[in-house]
Amino acid sequence: MFRTHTCGELKITDVNNEVTLAGWIQRIRNHGAMTFIDLRDRYGITQLVIDEDSSDTVKKQLTELGREFVIQVKGTVRERSSKNRNIATGEIEIGVVNITVLNSSEIPPFTIQDDTDGGDDLRMKYRYLDLRRNKVRDNLILRAKMAHAVRSYLNEKEFIETETPVLIKSTPEGARDFVVPSRMNEGEFYALPQSPQVFKQLLMIAGFDRYYQIVKCFRDEDLRADRQPEFTQIDCEMSFVEQKDILETFQGLTEYLFKEILDIEVTEFPWMPYSEAMEKYGSDKPDIRFDMLINDISDVVKGKGFGVFDSAEFVGAINADECSCYTRKQLDQLTNWVKRPQIGAKGLIYVKCNDDGSFKSSVDKFYSQEDLKIWADTVGAKPHDLILVMSGDREQTLSALGELRLEMGNQLKLRKKNIFKPLWVVDFPLLEWNEETERFHAMHHPFTAPKPEDIHLLETDPGKVRANAYDLVINGVEIGGGSVRIFDSELQAKMFGKLGFTKEQAQDQFGFLMNAFKYGAPPHAGIAFGFDRLVSLFAGLDSIRDVIAFPKNNSGRDVMIDSPSQIAQEQLDELSLKLNLKE
Amino acid sequence: MFRTHTCGELKITDVNNEVTLAGWIQRIRNHGAMTFIDLRDRYGITQLVIDEDSSDTVKKQLTELGREFVIQVKGTVRERSSKNRNIATGEIEIGVVNITVLNSSEIPPFTIQDDTDGGDDLRMKYRYLDLRRNKVRDNLILRAKMAHAVRSYLNEKEFIETETPVLIKSTPEGARDFVVPSRMNEGEFYALPQSPQVFKQLLMIAGFDRYYQIVKCFRDEDLRADRQPEFTQIDCEMSFVEQKDILETFQGLTEYLFKEILDIEVTEFPWMPYSEAMEKYGSDKPDIRFDMLINDISDVVKGKGFGVFDSAEFVGAINADECSCYTRKQLDQLTNWVKRPQIGAKGLIYVKCNDDGSFKSSVDKFYSQEDLKIWADTVGAKPHDLILVMSGDREQTLSALGELRLEMGNQLKLRKKNIFKPLWVVDFPLLEWNEETERFHAMHHPFTAPKPEDIHLLETDPGKVRANAYDLVINGVEIGGGSVRIFDSELQAKMFGKLGFTKEQAQDQFGFLMNAFKYGAPPHAGIAFGFDRLVSLFAGLDSIRDVIAFPKNNSGRDVMIDSPSQIAQEQLDELSLKLNLKE
Repeated sequence: MFRTHTCGELKITDVNNEVTLAGWIQRIRNHGAMTFIDLRDRYGITQLVIDEDSSDTVKKQLTELGREFVIQVKGTVRERSSKNRNIATGEIEIGVVNITVLNSSEIPPFTIQDDTDGGDDLRMKYRYLDLRRNKVRDNLILRAKMAHAVRSYLNEKEFIETETPVLIKSTPEGARDFVVPSRMNEGEFYALPQSPQVFKQLLMIAGFDRYYQIVKCFRDEDLRADRQPEFTQIDCEMSFVEQKDILETFQGLTEYLFKEILDIEVTEFPWMPYSEAMEKYGSDKPDIRFDMLINDISDVVKGKGFGVFDSAEFVGAINADECSCYTRKQLDQLTNWVKRPQIGAKGLIYVKCNDDGSFKSSVDKFYSQEDLKIWADTVGAKPHDLILVMSGDREQTLSALGELRLEMGNQLKLRKKNIFKPLWVVDFPLLEWNEETERFHAMHHPFTAPKPEDIHLLETDPGKVRANAYDLVINGVEIGGGSVRIFDSELQAKMFGKLGFTKEQAQDQFGFLMNAFKYGAPPHAGIAFGFDRLVSLFAGLDSIRDVIAFPKNNSGRDVMIDSPSQIAQEQLDELSLKLNLKE
Repeated sequence: MFRTHTCGELKITDVNNEVTLAGWIQRIRNHGAMTFIDLRDRYGITQLVIDEDSSDTVKKQLTELGREFVIQVKGTVRERSSKNRNIATGEIEIGVVNITVLNSSEIPPFTIQDDTDGGDDLRMKYRYLDLRRNKVRDNLILRAKMAHAVRSYLNEKEFIETETPVLIKSTPEGARDFVVPSRMNEGEFYALPQSPQVFKQLLMIAGFDRYYQIVKCFRDEDLRADRQPEFTQIDCEMSFVEQKDILETFQGLTEYLFKEILDIEVTEFPWMPYSEAMEKYGSDKPDIRFDMLINDISDVVKGKGFGVFDSAEFVGAINADECSCYTRKQLDQLTNWVKRPQIGAKGLIYVKCNDDGSFKSSVDKFYSQEDLKIWADTVGAKPHDLILVMSGDREQTLSALGELRLEMGNQLKLRKKNIFKPLWVVDFPLLEWNEETERFHAMHHPFTAPKPEDIHLLETDPGKVRANAYDLVINGVEIGGGSVRIFDSELQAKMFGKLGFTKEQAQDQFGFLMNAFKYGAPPHAGIAFGFDRLVSLFAGLDSIRDVIAFPKNNSGRDVMIDSPSQIAQEQLDELSLKLNLKE
C-alpha cells in the first residue's frame, strides 16, 4: 500500500502521528517561508506544509512539482493554526518529511475544479480528467449508491437478479437494432437487445416468479438531445400479479430510493388515465409540480366571426397566474417560442386580465369584454392573470399548449428541482395508427395485454382499445413504463395479426415465445425504469450524459477513444462482409 | 394478486384458513375417491386434495387438468393425515373449493423433474421448461446470491461500481473482437469489449481509487468445451496498491463468499511461483487438493542404454500411492489415455513397487532392481505404490504428466467437490514467444508491469522477465487473474515496442491511454474473476453452461431463439454492408 491513510480521514486526534499519504496535487501556494500543497484523492483534500524545518531535499523537490502530479508524502500530523471548518481534514495539516514523485503531469487542458474552464468537447475528449472533478465523480458515486439501493429493495422482495443474453436475435420489427456479424456462422448476425423483454417473459414461463436486472440496452437511432446508443434499464417482471400489484411494488421502490438516497418522504403517487393527461396537460408525461391545466374553450370562442377559431378543430387555453404584467416584448417572445419548428404552432392569442376587472386581448377586434369575461370564467382566471390561447388540430394544439405550459412553468419558477411529484399514467391506448405504414403499431410493444373489457373492440374499433399499460412519470420525466402481458397464445397470435404480421412472420420472429406460451404461461406483468434518467433526476441534472462514466456524443461517437472506427480488411474478410459505401 | 400465499409457505399454524394459491401442476395422483395434485411454484410444492366433499364442478374440472397446467385454487388449509417431513409444507394440504384454469399446457417434451428424461439439445431448445427444474433454477438463484455477496463485500470496502461502455473500439490486437457496424457513422464499427481493461485503468487515472463491475464481456472465438461467446466477469481495479494488497483484498472476497454462500471456512491461500507450478504440477493452474507431485528423474534414468530416456530432454515421474495393484488392462488404458491427441504423449512407463520391496516395470530390460530402487527413492515411492514415467520435450512432458496426475487424482477420488483449495500462482513470465508470428506476445496483456528487479532483462533476455501478474486458482480451475499495471508512459511505450507495435500502431490503438498517462497516473493494479466459473465451482458443476440462464452452444448458437440468423437486405443496406460469402 502506498499510503497509511486517505486524504479525507485525518483528524485532530491523529496529531503527532507519522503518516504516509498519496494523491494528486490540487494546488501549491507559496507564502515565502512556507509552502502549502493541497493533496487530493477521491476521499478528500489534506494540506501539506513545507517550511523552514523541512529538509533541503524536500525544499528542492518543491520547485519541480506542479498541478496534478501524483506524489507520495511521509510526514507528521500537526494541528493547524488557522482551521478550515469546510473540509473534514480542516483541523490538521502534514509537516512534510519526505516526498516521492510517483508520476508527473503535463498541464491539464482544463482546470480540475468544480467550475472548470473546459468546454463540453474538451471535457469529453479528456473524460478521465473531467472525472477527477468532484461534481462529476459524485454523480457516478450517486449512481452506484442508487444501483445498490435498487438491488437491496428488490432482493428483499425476493426478486431474482438474472442475466439475460446480450447477443440475441434481430427482428425486422426492431429496425433500430444494432447487429453483430458472427464469424462462426457465416452470413448470420446477432442483435443487441433494445430490452430483455422476451427473455424476462420466458423467465416468467420458467416459473422464476420475480425477476430483475440492471442491464445495458441498445438502440441504433438518431440521437436526440438526451439519448445514448447504449443505456441502462432496471428491468423487472412478476408473475401472478395484476396491474395494481406492479404499481404498488414499484411505488415502493421509488419511495425507498427517495428515502435512502435523498432522505425525503415522497408518498403520493396518483394515477391518471392517459386521456386525462393528454387533455389536461397536453402530454403523456405531465409535470404535476404545478397546475396551469389546459382548458377546452372551443365552445366558448366559436361563432363570433374570428375565422381562425371558427375553423379550428380545437381551441385551448392555459391561465398563467399573476402574469398580466407580461410586456409586449415578453408576449412576442412567447409567440416566437411557440412558432419554433419544435413546437410548430401558427400563433398565440393572449388575454390580459387587468387589475380593474377589464381585459386586454390580441383579439379585441372579435371579442367583447363580456366574451372575454366568459373565457376568464371558463379557465378560472382572476385579475392579474394572463390567458394564453392556441387553436388548430386537436392533438397538435394540445401538445403545443402542453409545451407552452412547461415553458411558463419554467418562467414562473414552478418547476423546482428539489420537489418531486410522481404520477402513474395508466390506460394507454393499445395501438396507434401509423399514417406512413398505414397500419396499427403497438404503442408499447406487441406483448401488451388489452384491458379485458375492451377486447371486443379489437375487431370493430382497434384504436379505442385501452391497454393495461402504465408509465411512471416524475416531474414531467418518463422514468419507467410497463404493462400487463398477454399470456395466452391465441390472443398473442391475434395481436400479431392486428399489427400486420403474417402468420409466417410472427412464427419466424416470435415462434419460440408463442411456442413457450403453449406450455403453461402464468399471468405476468412487468416494468422497466430508465436508470440513467432516474439517476439524473435524483442528481438534479438535465442530461443523462453526466451520470454516465464514458458517454457518447450526439453522433454516437466516443470522442475519447475515437470510436466507432474503421476495421481492418482481414476482419471484414473473416466476417464475410464487404463495405458498400454510398457515393 | 392471483394468490394469498406461495406454494412454499403454508404451515400447520395456517390450518382452517381460506387461502388462494397459484402455480403449475407437477403431478396428479388419482386414488379413487380422493385425488391429490402437487401444485408447484418457485417457492415449493403444496398438496391439493379433491375428495367426496368437493363440488361437482371441481370434480369435473379434474378430468381436464394435466401436467404443467397453470391453475388458481381456492381452498381451506387442512392438517395432513400422513405427513411428509421432506418438504416445508408437508404437514398440510388444501381442501379444494374452487379451481380456475389460468392456462393449459401441451405435454412437455421432457419431464420437469430433477432427473429429467430430456437430452441436452432438447433441454436447450426448450430452455424455459428446463429452467422450471429445481436443480437448474437453484443454480441461477445461487448465482444471484453470489453476485449480491460480491457487491456487499466490495461496497463495504469502498469500491465504486461503475458501468463502462459496451460499444467500444476495435483493435487489431483483439482479433477475436465482435464488431458492430454503426448506421450513423458509415463504414465504421464499434467493438464489444473482451474486458473493460482500458476503461478501468482510465478510472484509476480519474482518481476513482477503487472500481468494480460485474460485467458482460465478449469473445468471438472457437468455443472449447467450457467457453461462451458472452461471459461475465467480476472486474476490479485499485490505486496506490501493490501486488500483495490485491491478493489480500481478493483472498478476503473469496473467503467471504465461501463463508456467506457455503458456510465453510477457507482461509489458506498459499502463493506459488509460476515456475514451481509448471515443474511440480505441469500446469499453471495446479489442483492442490492432492500431492502426487512431478519429479524430475532425468539424471537418475539416463546412461543405462534406454535410448528413449537417453535422448529425451526431460524424464519425469509421478508416484500414485497404493496403485501397484493396477492390472495390465488398467495400465494399457492409462497408456492409451496419454496417447490421445489431447495429451499427445508417445507412451507411458510404469514401475510397480511390490509388497516385498521388489519392482516390476515396463523397462526391466534396461534397468536393474537397484536402478529402480533409486527411482523409487527419488520419487518417494513405498511398497504398494505405482510410479508412472514420461519423457520427451521438457514443456510437453511436464504438461502431459500434469494431465496424467489429474487423471490419477480422479481415479483415486482425490478431487472431492466439497473440498476447496485456493492457490495464488504468481510471478508469471511477462512475455511469451510466439513461433508463428516470430515475436513476443504479452502473456497477460500489454499493460502488465514487469517486476522492477527484472526490468533490466527486457533488453537482454525478454523471455526471462517476470511480471507482477497473478492468478487465483481453486481446485485446478483458474478463477481469476490480474496484474500490477504499468503507469509510466515511457515504460508503456517500451512495452509496445517489445510487442512489435510501431509507434504509429501504438498511438492509433492506445493513444488515448498513453495520453492519459501523461496527466498523473497513479500506481494501480487489478484483477478479474470469471463469474460464470466461480458460480459453477460453488455449485459443484463441471460446466459453466448450467449457471447461465440462456447459454449458447459450442457453435455460438442460441438454439432456443435460433440466433444468430440472417438479417433483411434493408438492414444491410442501411449499414452500408454487403455479404461476401465464401463459395
